[in-house]
Amino acid sequence: MQSVAPFQEIINTEIHRRLALPQFQEPKGLYAPCEYILKNGGKRVRASLVLMAAKMFCHDYHKALPVALAFETFHNFTLIHDDIMDNADVRRGQPTVHVKWNTNTAILSGDAVMIMAYSFFEDAKDFVPSLFSLLNKTALEVCEGQQYDIDLELADLHEKWVSEDVYLTMIKLKTSVLIAACLKAGAIIGGANSHDAELLYQFGINVGIAFQLQDDLLDTYGNYETFGKKIGGDIAVNKKTYLVIKTLELLDSKSKQEFCSLYSSSYSYQDKYEKVLSIFDSLNIKQITQQKVDSYFKQAQECLELLHIDTALKANLYEFMNDLQNRAY
Amino acid sequence: MQSVAPFQEIINTEIHRRLALPQFQEPKGLYAPCEYILKNGGKRVRASLVLMAAKMFCHDYHKALPVALAFETFHNFTLIHDDIMDNADVRRGQPTVHVKWNTNTAILSGDAVMIMAYSFFEDAKDFVPSLFSLLNKTALEVCEGQQYDIDLELADLHEKWVSEDVYLTMIKLKTSVLIAACLKAGAIIGGANSHDAELLYQFGINVGIAFQLQDDLLDTYGNYETFGKKIGGDIAVNKKTYLVIKTLELLDSKSKQEFCSLYSSSYSYQDKYEKVLSIFDSLNIKQITQQKVDSYFKQAQECLELLHIDTALKANLYEFMNDLQNRAY
Repeated sequence: MQSVAPFQEIINTEIHRRLALPQFQEPKGLYAPCEYILKNGGKRVRASLVLMAAKMFCHDYHKALPVALAFETFHNFTLIHDDIMDNADVRRGQPTVHVKWNTNTAILSGDAVMIMAYSFFEDAKDFVPSLFSLLNKTALEVCEGQQYDIDLELADLHEKWVSEDVYLTMIKLKTSVLIAACLKAGAIIGGANSHDAELLYQFGINVGIAFQLQDDLLDTYGNYETFGKKIGGDIAVNKKTYLVIKTLELLDSKSKQEFCSLYSSSYSYQDKYEKVLSIFDSLNIKQITQQKVDSYFKQAQECLELLHIDTALKANLYEFMNDLQNRAY
Repeated sequence: MQSVAPFQEIINTEIHRRLALPQFQEPKGLYAPCEYILKNGGKRVRASLVLMAAKMFCHDYHKALPVALAFETFHNFTLIHDDIMDNADVRRGQPTVHVKWNTNTAILSGDAVMIMAYSFFEDAKDFVPSLFSLLNKTALEVCEGQQYDIDLELADLHEKWVSEDVYLTMIKLKTSVLIAACLKAGAIIGGANSHDAELLYQFGINVGIAFQLQDDLLDTYGNYETFGKKIGGDIAVNKKTYLVIKTLELLDSKSKQEFCSLYSSSYSYQDKYEKVLSIFDSLNIKQITQQKVDSYFKQAQECLELLHIDTALKANLYEFMNDLQNRAY
């Protein structure tokens, strides 16, 4: 992801510097897993977005670093706990914390990583209460998103409340609000007016939802080489993706019954994939989802266009959106 | 506990008011467990201490309520996660969150309760950065304490690092720092100078350690009716209490070996209790521990005496200390 590359080194350097501070050393049983998740840190998208947004409105965007780190660190906390809840073994190509250590260690070090996020926030010069409030609000929303995800996971496909609306709320809370908050926080630190800060928030919401819907699409229709995951994985584990929820909405009552049986069946991987795909295809699910993705990206673009700043300053965020949009099939 | 009674109603009313706010309602799967732990809230000692300390230095001590709630709520978060880690079934006479719901729910709602703590903190008028920093520092220390507790639990009695020092560090981090921070926070909000705020912090540290050591003592030498727990429970589950660690320190190498075998043995409850007790008695463990308890209470009292305020204003904290000290055998 080219757009975040220029910020990654600044962020990584600062994370490494902080992890070496005396207060984050002992007991090792607590801090080694914290260091493990924070150093094996992925693309640093969230922290980059804080810096990127700040840079649009001021030269001295490094001052946003503590808040950037806070949001990035908060994100890493959610990964540790989500991986326990989702029973996930691998994260960023490495064993997850609860697999490498154990569940108790993952609970406790996850807690510590969340508190570290708040302690990084402490160093924001000229503490802005609205930023603290944004962090808290967003953090709770991310928990709400995870709860909706769990509720959806446990729900029966027949249940009435399993709807497109609930699904969109879930991905908005689970993913988009954090991206949106990073952009808004950066904008506030950079000195943006509240109108522009809000536009960036909405840009983040739209980009986040588009990204997640695209993820659903790529899991079924993508290309292994470019997507990096086995295609059809969601179908194999009966995941309630946007494609499935849209399908349920479009089928008549009898066909819906049949689809539910098929989707929870124990057909072989290839067999089930092909049968589900033929139903998706008969309903134009790929096209419908792609249109939805495009519409969210379009709304995101409109937010960027409305920003009251020089077009050249928007280049970074256009590039970021293109990076996401161009994930190939 | 008479000393905290006057504050409990203020705190309970405010917690109930906040839990009824629209932002803490949906999804129910997330917020019902948060409400469950926060409403079934125990004695509200921590929040009371914040108010009590503020009241020593100002009339308008109600302004300390948001911070009081933040510390109390943080404490409740630790209970949810600690109960998972300790595999505890009952808390305050009710099923623990992970028993009433499940582990994933307890992890996620625990996270939400911690974030709620920070969001209550938000409402502190005239946000004081040093208070935020105190909350973060304390929160991390409590996690460190829990980690030391886990490490001690898993350690072999023979291991060299299992020492009185480590044990005291553990109980200080796990219990005392939060009590100390509550007092210091209240003092800062009340307008105390830094010397008095620090004295209250030290009072809290000493009282907290004294309380925990006394707890170890009562579990072995207490009276069921007044202590409210079955006597000898720690011995039955091979818990490494202060009494055990002190015993190990005082025994010669051969006797230590024998004690370790006895302590991890599968003797009947009564048999093991009596055998362990006779070793404790031969080493004067009860007296040694009681002296240690007294010495921490004495240090706490000295901190109170040194406070630069009218003696009458100290009455509440003397009463609090007496409440703790007079837990009968």
